[in-house]
Amino acid sequence: MEESDFRKNIAIAGLGLIGGSFAMALRQLGAGRIFGIDTDKEVLKKAADRRVIDGGFSDAKEILGRSDMVIIALYPKDAIEFIKNNSRYFKPGALITDTCGIKQPIIDAAKRNLPENVEFIGGHPMAGNEFKGFDVASKELFLNTNYIITPHEKNSEKGINTVEKIAAAIGCKCVTRIEAEVHDRIISFTSQLPHVVAISFANLATEVSGMNAFTGRSFTDIIRVAALNKELWSQIFMMNKMNIIDRIEDMEKVLQKLKNAINEQNEGGLKILFSNAEKGKREIG
Amino acid sequence: MEESDFRKNIAIAGLGLIGGSFAMALRQLGAGRIFGIDTDKEVLKKAADRRVIDGGFSDAKEILGRSDMVIIALYPKDAIEFIKNNSRYFKPGALITDTCGIKQPIIDAAKRNLPENVEFIGGHPMAGNEFKGFDVASKELFLNTNYIITPHEKNSEKGINTVEKIAAAIGCKCVTRIEAEVHDRIISFTSQLPHVVAISFANLATEVSGMNAFTGRSFTDIIRVAALNKELWSQIFMMNKMNIIDRIEDMEKVLQKLKNAINEQNEGGLKILFSNAEKGKREIG
Repeated sequence: MEESDFRKNIAIAGLGLIGGSFAMALRQLGAGRIFGIDTDKEVLKKAADRRVIDGGFSDAKEILGRSDMVIIALYPKDAIEFIKNNSRYFKPGALITDTCGIKQPIIDAAKRNLPENVEFIGGHPMAGNEFKGFDVASKELFLNTNYIITPHEKNSEKGINTVEKIAAAIGCKCVTRIEAEVHDRIISFTSQLPHVVAISFANLATEVSGMNAFTGRSFTDIIRVAALNKELWSQIFMMNKMNIIDRIEDMEKVLQKLKNAINEQNEGGLKILFSNAEKGKREIG
Repeated sequence: MEESDFRKNIAIAGLGLIGGSFAMALRQLGAGRIFGIDTDKEVLKKAADRRVIDGGFSDAKEILGRSDMVIIALYPKDAIEFIKNNSRYFKPGALITDTCGIKQPIIDAAKRNLPENVEFIGGHPMAGNEFKGFDVASKELFLNTNYIITPHEKNSEKGINTVEKIAAAIGCKCVTRIEAEVHDRIISFTSQLPHVVAISFANLATEVSGMNAFTGRSFTDIIRVAALNKELWSQIFMMNKMNIIDRIEDMEKVLQKLKNAINEQNEGGLKILFSNAEKGKREIG
């Protein structure tokens, strides 16, 4: 990493799982000054005490004017609010990025609200897990994960490069660029549908008890993410509504095919579905 | 383990993932003589060369008369055929068990075909994974897994105890008794539905490419078992048809609820589904 890539002052809005981990990873890399912005003063104190940040602010206005780079690690709705409320306070020339799992609405908000003298580049580190908050943050969270950057037509190659370099520096194995709209469609399959399925499956588990004796790893795997961050995922599902509904309907169609094959004792048909699944797993699993 | 629990001679029919692992685990425990029965002579040779078995037989008749215990680790249909074809050759007083993921049809076949002077006790080690065959067998396969025993009205406490002790000795963390019919219903949810879901999900993955850059752990987890043993799972699905269809329909109903909540931007309804999922995961996840 070059000194210039880290900028002098980096502000991170939201010191939760992702923002906290970002701060820890950047700290370890020897980045310049790192400022934390969070409404929870306890978290700011904790992060400062552990020297993860050089200063904590519950009011973003106090620090944005001195921040060369801003990483918005908030829930989607809050990220949009943050952009709207602070549009006048960013430092001219600042590079701003975010970490939301849904991109088009964030990019739209940035385009509509931010002045011409700052650059906003959308980003999505696919490093979240079933936990939340600063206490579970880790400098190793990003190791071997995917990082997706969703540039828009006004972004500079230099700005995009900076975000890419930071993503690689914190440990991501694969850093990709893609249009926000395509991101939102792909991710509705690769990330949101697995969560939809986990939630649906776990809903069925409430009707029974004493089942621990009857589970194997396929069960544990499918149910792992079912106790998810309700506010975060509610926002993601609502903001990517049309894509998610399409994906659920895709899933319903295959379930129907499988059910028919079993119902009709159609072994050939069932095995075709098995072969397709194998092909799908081989290609991208 | 007492000497008497292992019996003198143990025959294992089918040296695949489960049967091979059984032989390895029993060998390590210092069991008596272990005989392998398999139609694949290469596998028998490999197992004998590695001293996992003391003798290999492609014709079960040659060894069953000398086997105090028989573990049938075949696919369900083959297990039924094995019971039918060899009913006259078991040693009087022999204890016979199986390892199939579906129990009622196996128990029925055993009851219908086996003589009164042998005892058949159904068993289901929930230790399978996405691989198959002797080459992936391991003496550690059963560590910390669940083992379900499905006794029927003619079973002796002594016989059931023996199977329970063996399951515990090979490393299972939880050994449970339950009626075969209840087993088949529970397992359609805890094991077969996760596989149905994985297959359905992976079927959607065939339509895309270059998606590796867009996946997180929820994706990897859900797709892990999608490349399953086609013959084994086709048999399991067909033989547990009514239960599996019920489970798929349960799943369809929750997916529909989730879809409706998202479609109607019903945040409250969505969060209730999230809370139920959390409750389900907490109870048995």
